Amino acid sequence: MLIVQKYGGTSVGGLDRIENVANRVAQARKAGNDLVVVVSAMSGETNKLISYAEHFSKTPAKAEMDMLLSSGERVTAALLAIALQEMGVDAVAMTGRQAGIKTDNNHTYARIESIDTTAMDSALESGKVIIVAGFQGINDENRVTTLGRGGSDLSAVAIAGALKADACEIYSDVDGVYTTDPRIEPKAQKMDFISYDEMLELASLGAKVLQNRSEELAKKLGVKIVAKSSFSDAEGTVIAKEIEEMEEVLVSGIALDRNQARVTVRGVVDRPGIAAEIFTMLADEQINIDMIIQNASADGTTNLGFTVPESEIERAKKVISEFDHDISGMDFDSNVCKVSVVGVGMKSHSGVAAKAFSAMARNNINIDMISTSEIKVSMIINADYGELAVRTLHATYELDK
Amino acid sequence: MLIVQKYGGTSVGGLDRIENVANRVAQARKAGNDLVVVVSAMSGETNKLISYAEHFSKTPAKAEMDMLLSSGERVTAALLAIALQEMGVDAVAMTGRQAGIKTDNNHTYARIESIDTTAMDSALESGKVIIVAGFQGINDENRVTTLGRGGSDLSAVAIAGALKADACEIYSDVDGVYTTDPRIEPKAQKMDFISYDEMLELASLGAKVLQNRSEELAKKLGVKIVAKSSFSDAEGTVIAKEIEEMEEVLVSGIALDRNQARVTVRGVVDRPGIAAEIFTMLADEQINIDMIIQNASADGTTNLGFTVPESEIERAKKVISEFDHDISGMDFDSNVCKVSVVGVGMKSHSGVAAKAFSAMARNNINIDMISTSEIKVSMIINADYGELAVRTLHATYELDK
Repeated sequence: MLIVQKYGGTSVGGLDRIENVANRVAQARKAGNDLVVVVSAMSGETNKLISYAEHFSKTPAKAEMDMLLSSGERVTAALLAIALQEMGVDAVAMTGRQAGIKTDNNHTYARIESIDTTAMDSALESGKVIIVAGFQGINDENRVTTLGRGGSDLSAVAIAGALKADACEIYSDVDGVYTTDPRIEPKAQKMDFISYDEMLELASLGAKVLQNRSEELAKKLGVKIVAKSSFSDAEGTVIAKEIEEMEEVLVSGIALDRNQARVTVRGVVDRPGIAAEIFTMLADEQINIDMIIQNASADGTTNLGFTVPESEIERAKKVISEFDHDISGMDFDSNVCKVSVVGVGMKSHSGVAAKAFSAMARNNINIDMISTSEIKVSMIINADYGELAVRTLHATYELDK
Repeated sequence: MLIVQKYGGTSVGGLDRIENVANRVAQARKAGNDLVVVVSAMSGETNKLISYAEHFSKTPAKAEMDMLLSSGERVTAALLAIALQEMGVDAVAMTGRQAGIKTDNNHTYARIESIDTTAMDSALESGKVIIVAGFQGINDENRVTTLGRGGSDLSAVAIAGALKADACEIYSDVDGVYTTDPRIEPKAQKMDFISYDEMLELASLGAKVLQNRSEELAKKLGVKIVAKSSFSDAEGTVIAKEIEEMEEVLVSGIALDRNQARVTVRGVVDRPGIAAEIFTMLADEQINIDMIIQNASADGTTNLGFTVPESEIERAKKVISEFDHDISGMDFDSNVCKVSVVGVGMKSHSGVAAKAFSAMARNNINIDMISTSEIKVSMIINADYGELAVRTLHATYELDK
């Protein structure tokens, strides 16, 4: 089997932990696997380097930031290769460039365009374990680029896709994907399997194992992901294509996202393009919009509701206030959260959403906004009721069974 | 003027010091110069990375060490470029690879083979100040290499040569080359000018400003070096080709090297090749030999004297003892030092050496070994008399004037 393993910052967050990772890699090697191991910077390193840069400039040039930030992963990759060699494992460390990772020119948030696997192919052929510095590539100007937060996951998934690996194991400090956050609901169960689409919804809703970009790439390339802990031998959760034959599960998990603030723009003049104008202005200010709700117009004006990350609410207010001639007013509420029910089974079963609303009502939890997709129902509620809502829904769909 | 500046680890050993360097670079830029700035890792960084590697292995693979160690210079280069951009200076950071530095495959001690200046030329042409990560290049297998201790000086000199720069300024915490160590002789004078050959002798004799490899490369490429302090505005010392017209100076400096141990091999059988055998064995064990003295054979045997760095004396003993059938015995003395008189003027003037010997005799300093070249006289003496010898010789040649 050809396996790509990825170890995050916490898993390599110290020399002893790198030693631990080396032991795991050596074991996987002993079991007869071909291995490419992608590593992040030691935890804390990237933030340290960012703080150095910010000592000099609030807006450091992105190309220079990439040269700066890409150094952390190189250190981990070299150290892990050295540790493995000492254990008698024939290992070679590669930078993103050496591994053939070509990206576009979008410094600090580059997209992988292609992977030239020549160097990796020949290293694998000669029996070497390859250690790749994650999070980085090279653009067509020969400059180092980085892939943004969570970039090492992207590196791993893209490499797994390019090498047609049998699996891409993502190691972190959690041992898989749970039906909900175990700190909120101790009865939460670890899932053995979850589909790409469900995981995408769960990830974007606050149950972070993989970032969305990596999930999307895995889905696109058909890379089988296994989410595992580097601190235990637990089985982990497989994230892959939905399997037709598997027993149908209506709801697979409940997610809670506390980083939400609700904005309601009242009395928006109902002329074509006004919503587009507002959201273009928000996008220009780099404000991330999550849910958007607009009701049909009644009296020539309409109400526009949306949510933004809590930290961006002040900037959102400023943008909206510039539309004062086209609106009658606005409300803000930072004390909200988003609770979501996710499951591929919803596609083919009605009544899942209704069941959620009933459960909320039974517990006197008022729902401010609702948004649904084929595989999820999201509700914005008062933040004080977030945990109660999660536990209620978890029980309602019998996820503790 | 096109100037290459190089700032060592102490000069960039903290964020405030990098800011200070940025100010200097900005000033040189304002004065109308084109600039390429080569930087070392922040002081302490390289040793920290080495200690990390040694946590895992006493003999880490050299290719991986290079990937590890090259990261420190990249951090400094990126930070300095960011600091300069913030000051309004159009700066770009380059790794050794991006600057076009090609080396051989000798990892951790690579030699620069060529510099492809395409990227630097075009950056200079578009008015940019280039910041290059020193100490590193790339080999023909596309892997990062490092140039060994003092490698950033080598990078700077090689770049200055390739770009035909008007000067290569080497910044450190000393403000130039002195007639002798001012901690020994407070009357020591800073020199305005010294020739490559004299500097080579002084450097190898313990007056370190530049390492020999960089000196030799500067001489070969005809690069004018200026040794300066990054902590003061003092003029510094120019190291360049000997100028015919300049007023002839007999002796330019006195150097002291305490890291010496003397070995005398007695009764060496006088057969062809025995000395070669002994020194080959020592070289195979990576023992550095400095002075070698052999007298003409008298009774079919001869005495062979040489010096090694003090730390290598035990290993030297072990090698020599394997020749027990061809020698009658050996003496060792670790309590010695080497004091040297250096000056191009000696070439054409007799009596310089005699003057030194007389001065030593007047002060009852016994000379164990003598070695001379065209531009230096070196003497091995008892370590206890080292400082006295330096002061005596400094006064003898009137270097305090």
